[in-house]
Amino acid sequence: MKTSVSKKNNMSKPLILVTNDDGITSKGIRELVNIASQLGEVFVVAPDSPQSGMGHAITVDKTLHVKKSHIFEGIASYECSGTPADCVKLAKHHFLKGKKIDLVLSGINHGNNASLSVIYSGTMSAAVEAAIEGIPAIGFSLDQFGYDIDFSHTRSYAATIISKVLNDGLPKHMALNVNFPKISDEEIKGIKVVRQTNGYWNEEFDERVSPSGRPYFWMGGEFVNREPEATDNDIWALENNYVAVVPVHYDRTDYQSLEKLGEQFFSK
Amino acid sequence: MKTSVSKKNNMSKPLILVTNDDGITSKGIRELVNIASQLGEVFVVAPDSPQSGMGHAITVDKTLHVKKSHIFEGIASYECSGTPADCVKLAKHHFLKGKKIDLVLSGINHGNNASLSVIYSGTMSAAVEAAIEGIPAIGFSLDQFGYDIDFSHTRSYAATIISKVLNDGLPKHMALNVNFPKISDEEIKGIKVVRQTNGYWNEEFDERVSPSGRPYFWMGGEFVNREPEATDNDIWALENNYVAVVPVHYDRTDYQSLEKLGEQFFSK
Repeated sequence: MKTSVSKKNNMSKPLILVTNDDGITSKGIRELVNIASQLGEVFVVAPDSPQSGMGHAITVDKTLHVKKSHIFEGIASYECSGTPADCVKLAKHHFLKGKKIDLVLSGINHGNNASLSVIYSGTMSAAVEAAIEGIPAIGFSLDQFGYDIDFSHTRSYAATIISKVLNDGLPKHMALNVNFPKISDEEIKGIKVVRQTNGYWNEEFDERVSPSGRPYFWMGGEFVNREPEATDNDIWALENNYVAVVPVHYDRTDYQSLEKLGEQFFSK
Repeated sequence: MKTSVSKKNNMSKPLILVTNDDGITSKGIRELVNIASQLGEVFVVAPDSPQSGMGHAITVDKTLHVKKSHIFEGIASYECSGTPADCVKLAKHHFLKGKKIDLVLSGINHGNNASLSVIYSGTMSAAVEAAIEGIPAIGFSLDQFGYDIDFSHTRSYAATIISKVLNDGLPKHMALNVNFPKISDEEIKGIKVVRQTNGYWNEEFDERVSPSGRPYFWMGGEFVNREPEATDNDIWALENNYVAVVPVHYDRTDYQSLEKLGEQFFSK
């Protein structure tokens, strides 16, 4: 399958890979493609179906199916049966092999990926996958669910953040988790660089019975903020109508506990 | 669906939830159930099919199917259509709702989850899901792939680590990523508490054509160690025949970059 990055004389334009987790037909990725194509040459590899909640899943021991997409006019696009992380791997190591990808953008997600949602988020896993590869990356999410939500208030902020990262770069192997507040009568107040909120999802399982008599479940639940008084985290920023930007890394080592654990549990 | 935790007089026995990502029929979970049932009352909720590479995926907007399993004699067991993280959520918030789970064990995985594999690992996502809930948790993996691999050399070390955690606990919201070296003529040298190795997977995509003429891919690749000289990380420990123990947390904030990013990019 041959790539179709433009051969025209646009060497000065940065190459921007765009993906998401809601699938290539979602409104959010169309918004992001529109914004990004003002700032660079866009190449899209995105899931062919919704991949919400896929975390950092990758497709192992199964085949990956890809086809050329015609959904974005004039923009090279592929839709893939895999996860968001698969899409980035496939773009980097197959479609754009040997080319320098200047930036990976993921989203705009329908629903926020603040606090603990970052670990369940396919949107952010795509951005982190790029960070692993050493490519600057940004995951964008809007704090509102629904299919046909309004992204118009996010455009200028998304363009500003993308431009800054294209100009200044990012520390290597770091990705940005950007969450936009939902639209309201009040204008967005600005951008806050903040940390991940300490919170969790309190699950509830709705047990039902299928027509053939077998039990099944719907998982639901509500978010619990473990630090509702804090004013330096992403939930606070969203609730106060700021764009929340969290720098994200992929080293899972708990360095604070490393030495103590060595002494306490497994010395010698 | 009613739970069946034993009502017998075994109040003193800790309640241990066991899950994995290779699926409930795999050899590794059988090993772990055998070890854990010497140390506590075991309750199993595990995937009904292989979930390798699922990272921290959860099942949203889809139904979850669960049935009682008879695969482990005398041990309450359920097999679930979902991911490893789903299994922990379902156990905690449905089957064992209101009960104190003393420990969550995941594995033993067929294949190591050292270095970057921790982020793709369903095994570790189950352990981290428990850590989020405040339950001590350990993910176990063996540095060897294959269906019918030999776990015999891991047993005494697994039992030692589980016993220590049952006795002493773990710092709240931390999980252990335990990797065993593959079996060899030499005895395991001991346990090392180490950090996650800085490494990545260099992917290769094997493109093929289906009988109907459609292209598809198999993802493969090889692990690249970015710090082959280091002697304080999990890959070093495995290569030197130690059990590697990495304390893992779920705060993805890159604190080192937080302040600088605020100044550099988004001040005011």
